[in-house]
Amino acid sequence: MEQKIKVGIIGVGNMGSGHANNIKNGLCPEIELVAVADINPDRLKWTRENISEDIALFDDAIKMLDSGLIQACIVAVPHYDHPRYVLECAKRGIHVMSEKPAGVYGKQVREMYKELEKYPDVKFGIMFNQRTNDVYIQMRNLIQSGKYGNIRRVNWLITNWYRSQGYYDSGAWRATWSGEGGGVLMNQCPHQLDLIQWICGMPNLVDCHMHFGKWHDIEVEDDVSAYMEYPNGATGVFIATTGDAYGTNRFEVQMDKAKLVVEDNKLRLWEFDMTEQEFSRLSTTNAFAQMHITEVPVETAEPSPEHPKVLNAWVGAILRGTPMVADGIEGINGLTLANAMHMSARLHKPVTLPMDDDAYYVELKKLIATSRRKPETASVYSDTSDSYHGV
Amino acid sequence: MEQKIKVGIIGVGNMGSGHANNIKNGLCPEIELVAVADINPDRLKWTRENISEDIALFDDAIKMLDSGLIQACIVAVPHYDHPRYVLECAKRGIHVMSEKPAGVYGKQVREMYKELEKYPDVKFGIMFNQRTNDVYIQMRNLIQSGKYGNIRRVNWLITNWYRSQGYYDSGAWRATWSGEGGGVLMNQCPHQLDLIQWICGMPNLVDCHMHFGKWHDIEVEDDVSAYMEYPNGATGVFIATTGDAYGTNRFEVQMDKAKLVVEDNKLRLWEFDMTEQEFSRLSTTNAFAQMHITEVPVETAEPSPEHPKVLNAWVGAILRGTPMVADGIEGINGLTLANAMHMSARLHKPVTLPMDDDAYYVELKKLIATSRRKPETASVYSDTSDSYHGV
Repeated sequence: MEQKIKVGIIGVGNMGSGHANNIKNGLCPEIELVAVADINPDRLKWTRENISEDIALFDDAIKMLDSGLIQACIVAVPHYDHPRYVLECAKRGIHVMSEKPAGVYGKQVREMYKELEKYPDVKFGIMFNQRTNDVYIQMRNLIQSGKYGNIRRVNWLITNWYRSQGYYDSGAWRATWSGEGGGVLMNQCPHQLDLIQWICGMPNLVDCHMHFGKWHDIEVEDDVSAYMEYPNGATGVFIATTGDAYGTNRFEVQMDKAKLVVEDNKLRLWEFDMTEQEFSRLSTTNAFAQMHITEVPVETAEPSPEHPKVLNAWVGAILRGTPMVADGIEGINGLTLANAMHMSARLHKPVTLPMDDDAYYVELKKLIATSRRKPETASVYSDTSDSYHGV
Repeated sequence: MEQKIKVGIIGVGNMGSGHANNIKNGLCPEIELVAVADINPDRLKWTRENISEDIALFDDAIKMLDSGLIQACIVAVPHYDHPRYVLECAKRGIHVMSEKPAGVYGKQVREMYKELEKYPDVKFGIMFNQRTNDVYIQMRNLIQSGKYGNIRRVNWLITNWYRSQGYYDSGAWRATWSGEGGGVLMNQCPHQLDLIQWICGMPNLVDCHMHFGKWHDIEVEDDVSAYMEYPNGATGVFIATTGDAYGTNRFEVQMDKAKLVVEDNKLRLWEFDMTEQEFSRLSTTNAFAQMHITEVPVETAEPSPEHPKVLNAWVGAILRGTPMVADGIEGINGLTLANAMHMSARLHKPVTLPMDDDAYYVELKKLIATSRRKPETASVYSDTSDSYHGV
């Protein structure tokens, strides 16, 4: 006597149709997909033909939200509209799962949060599916356990988000200031920007060099080199691009008493006999003394589909009050990192956090004003099932 | 009927005594160590007791150079004095091998080069021993072959130069502005700063964050995060510290048609089917298309003692005119990178290259004026044979 939540999806483009397929394929046993909304009739036709004939189809999201058919809704529209539809759901008491990022600029998201306070019963989640990857869960647990002291250095080389020109040409809104409000930081890296803050906390300074349309014919950034400083004095570097044909995903955290590296979806841990500070103080006789280090094997669960886990935890929260993978409210952190990187690159100087969201919005509006957003053409739908390479 | 070059060493501290031991142990068959000079009588005593009773001992380098005993000389004194002794050798027609770095600031080194033009017959080499490591030789050959197109991204995480406080306390000149003119960039990383320019060429912009005495009680930098831009548009990051107890040495170069990584003293190479640019242009139908990549095994020679190879090539140049490992003239490049990083960190802004050597000297003099150089104490000698961890 399984209870199911009646769910709708706003936007069955690349991401929305992936969710629809996962539900159809039985990966979300507590979800019944009852409706979808899309402004593109081709995508509604696709849904009828590929998912089910029994799904209610709407050419307008608001009509779907007002239909009374759904208890919960997945928002999978372009980034600028995430906060708007989240609020439209909340106002109607409809639980909501937003695709990442939470929005395009902090001001927009903070205003949404303020409004959401009126609807405390609505379960609002955000699709940070990489938080379900066991290598990151265990890395976070180890780091936050306290047994290894403080973080000293963070280094994430995340350059394996390769995208060809064909990708950017597949949708008129893609990689434009007016359509997405950014490039690799807004579309591909929200996962890593969320994970880095989830695991290491927020920096208080960001200094960033950024290149716009360096590897593609686009107006937004496709190459980012960011430096960060943390409140405890740790430093970090975050390097991202969609231009490297065979990039790297290597995340290293140096701590007082351990080193952790995630690469090729494996977590490696080296423990030190004592903290570096103790060792340094005690090593007075041999100037070239080196610490004794032990690699400790860490067992992590095999990768498995991540998006259904986020949806299942969300309906679990609705049905039973169990925790979500990522509360929507946490979306502001990764977004703030992206905004700070953009702000720093635009102003050619470091940006301190908490950042001035109003000032960033002013900068963003200037960019939007220059946007050469392509004339609306039929979007090309792509199967993304191979593209979530979180490793 | 082997011909030997009669060699002297100025300074038998950590590095000089390592060279003396290598010569004594037969690793430099064309070198006869006939004299050493050191201002510290204990080190002369050490030489007599540990190397040979037949070596002429001098308490003054100039007396050794004037003695007529030596044809060639190794300069292994603190950094500031490298150019001075190189010139004292050259003036007397004595071939000279300088320890790295070439000097402390570009102005000093350029003035030395100008003066050296008067002595074209003197073979002047510099101890960039890591250039003899086959992984870097092959990496350089592959990159410079032209078959993989241009460099796009350089990333060197070189944080495995750990030093305890005991190291810094072992010599009064160590890690002081007046004694060394810098920290990890001047003492440990000259190797990597040379290799990065030897393999990838010189950048034209350097932007650097640096922390001084962050992990140790010292006045100079022990933590560096530098960003670089190259004339062809490539970007790079160079991260260095002596504060990480179990750091990393990972050097990655992304090219149009290949990726190369050196880590754990292994070179890995991935070749692409075509350049990224071609692939991007051709991939119009599948927005998430990814290039076909092939890892190509690269055989590299086993590591072997590096310093003797540099000395042997130098005497080969003297005896037979064969190439040196590193011409002394090339020392300016790595030094310029270090100076540019210091300049950028001091001024809190990017520095463009070629840099203003006079301006840097002004900045350095300010730092020297603040130097709390420790009162002269007996230096502690340390066996460095385990500390040249080039991997």
